[in-house]
Amino acid sequence: MLIVRRNMSCLASVLRFSDYGEPSKVVKLCSENIETPHNDKLLVKILQAPINPADINTIQGKYPVKPAFPAIGGNECVAEVLQVGPNVTKLLVGDLVVPFETGLGTWRSHAIYQEDELMKVPSGIPLPEAATITVNPCTAYRMLKDFVKLKPGDTVIQNGANSACGQNVIQLCKAWGINNVGIVRDRPELSELTKYLKSLGATEILTEEQCRSTRVFKERKLPAPKLALNCVGGKNGLEMSKHLAQKGIMVTYGGMSREPVIVPTSALIFKDHEFRGFWMTRWKESKGKCAESTEMFEDLFQLVMDGKLKAPKHELISYKNYEEALSNALNVGGFIGSKIILDFTN
Amino acid sequence: MLIVRRNMSCLASVLRFSDYGEPSKVVKLCSENIETPHNDKLLVKILQAPINPADINTIQGKYPVKPAFPAIGGNECVAEVLQVGPNVTKLLVGDLVVPFETGLGTWRSHAIYQEDELMKVPSGIPLPEAATITVNPCTAYRMLKDFVKLKPGDTVIQNGANSACGQNVIQLCKAWGINNVGIVRDRPELSELTKYLKSLGATEILTEEQCRSTRVFKERKLPAPKLALNCVGGKNGLEMSKHLAQKGIMVTYGGMSREPVIVPTSALIFKDHEFRGFWMTRWKESKGKCAESTEMFEDLFQLVMDGKLKAPKHELISYKNYEEALSNALNVGGFIGSKIILDFTN
Repeated sequence: MLIVRRNMSCLASVLRFSDYGEPSKVVKLCSENIETPHNDKLLVKILQAPINPADINTIQGKYPVKPAFPAIGGNECVAEVLQVGPNVTKLLVGDLVVPFETGLGTWRSHAIYQEDELMKVPSGIPLPEAATITVNPCTAYRMLKDFVKLKPGDTVIQNGANSACGQNVIQLCKAWGINNVGIVRDRPELSELTKYLKSLGATEILTEEQCRSTRVFKERKLPAPKLALNCVGGKNGLEMSKHLAQKGIMVTYGGMSREPVIVPTSALIFKDHEFRGFWMTRWKESKGKCAESTEMFEDLFQLVMDGKLKAPKHELISYKNYEEALSNALNVGGFIGSKIILDFTN
Repeated sequence: MLIVRRNMSCLASVLRFSDYGEPSKVVKLCSENIETPHNDKLLVKILQAPINPADINTIQGKYPVKPAFPAIGGNECVAEVLQVGPNVTKLLVGDLVVPFETGLGTWRSHAIYQEDELMKVPSGIPLPEAATITVNPCTAYRMLKDFVKLKPGDTVIQNGANSACGQNVIQLCKAWGINNVGIVRDRPELSELTKYLKSLGATEILTEEQCRSTRVFKERKLPAPKLALNCVGGKNGLEMSKHLAQKGIMVTYGGMSREPVIVPTSALIFKDHEFRGFWMTRWKESKGKCAESTEMFEDLFQLVMDGKLKAPKHELISYKNYEEALSNALNVGGFIGSKIILDFTN
């Protein structure tokens, strides 16, 4: 571990971009001088930081978040506090932390952050779980909490059930006693994928084709879903929404088909369905640190400690191999996508 | 006026159907014996009852409301109380009333209703305004009240601005100081239609084509709409929804294009737009008579008395010419659709 003494600066390795484009081309590994933390600031050593689809889209210029150049990639990490400013009140040297805010630029070996931008990680949380907790588990948590009052025995339906967020939805539903039906695209490894998702806690896994004519709600006596979570859109989202109960809500958080959400007029008028969206970045910006966010992180960390919430399948790759990591970020893994986590410890 | 003495029955003319099909073919004029009203029931003489699109769709079997056969058409009317049962407490013989409930079958000369199915009409309300107040003005009122908290100076956008409901939205917005931008299909009589809708209180009228590229929000310094009211769907609804402010809501209450509502994924995720539906029948069923419904009718009747809320253009046709009336119900009028109101007084 790097030792930093008070008033001594250190040199950080940062993955920086100064223009939009293909990440493996525009992102460069640079060195940046890091000063002593003043006031409520801290110096942290980043340990692990994942590459998420939104990070890639941001660098491509396709995301509504437009950083000031030069910008540092990444929005998630787990880091260790190396040095604290004089006005830091709660965090101590040696604490593990994750960023509460987005847009902090986490793809770097060291950073100066403000105390209120960080959440402390309790001991006993593995690094990959901590490094990937602030985007997908938080998104899954909020979508299951903020739109419909769900109780044990209720049903949630989701497409993209094998996505990183989908895997979190499955695990949270399982932990909370909520039936969850997942939709995935048909594929050669369907039975392997189904087995894996059921091992996480999925009640049923259906292909898009099966979703149209499924009798699973009748056969398994599942109540019609009060909530549908959509990261695909188009026909897939439409077929899923048809299973919603009266007054059901479909929450869209992605659009992998690149087709819009299609809503039958009758679903709105006669079934009273609602179609809404969720974006974790906006939730954090509008809420700030609050009782709800504290409760969320406490719940999520506890589930990790209880072995009920695991990080998605992932590969740890040294930040020095960032070009390869960025090229492959959205296309790794076997029957289920694997997330790349940049390792800044070696 | 028909005189009915206590314990004397009368013969009512009713427009009845016993099968789904084309209204002019399946609806028959019949006679029905009406007994003395008992308990909390009243005998009323129907004066005027409009033909609404939902009435036609119900008879065609295309509406989710499936009446028991034989069924009597119609859901709106204005009627006069002829005789009251012993437990009727508020309504008096001679009172004018409108039905609060739907599905009461209003296309008939006389009916027995329960007291709590009716609302009293204050004096000074013209019959056509009373006969058409429970569907369109109530729908417009609720859509403007129940989804977004609107204040004077806010903007509402709507398509089908020339529809019966659209005309009510315009008048309510005008009365409440809310800017309202209306979208209509291009047509030869566009300038005449625009002039008419502006005379009702429309801030701006745009064609579908103009809606796509309008600079009206900038030029007239109108705030972006917080609320969009959609009775068309398809591309028209999509283009309209693009003008919504951040966190704006589009409420669908019709689908005249017969195309679904199309929602860009980005509008849900990044603009936090909501897409919901409204159906007056459900509102009435779920609420029953309540403080909100009393307040609504008081407000609407007051606006009629103040000359701020007029019935849509209409033609009064004797119920005896019901075949002609039913054939033409959805296709009457010149540059703006005209509603047919069945006259049961001669």
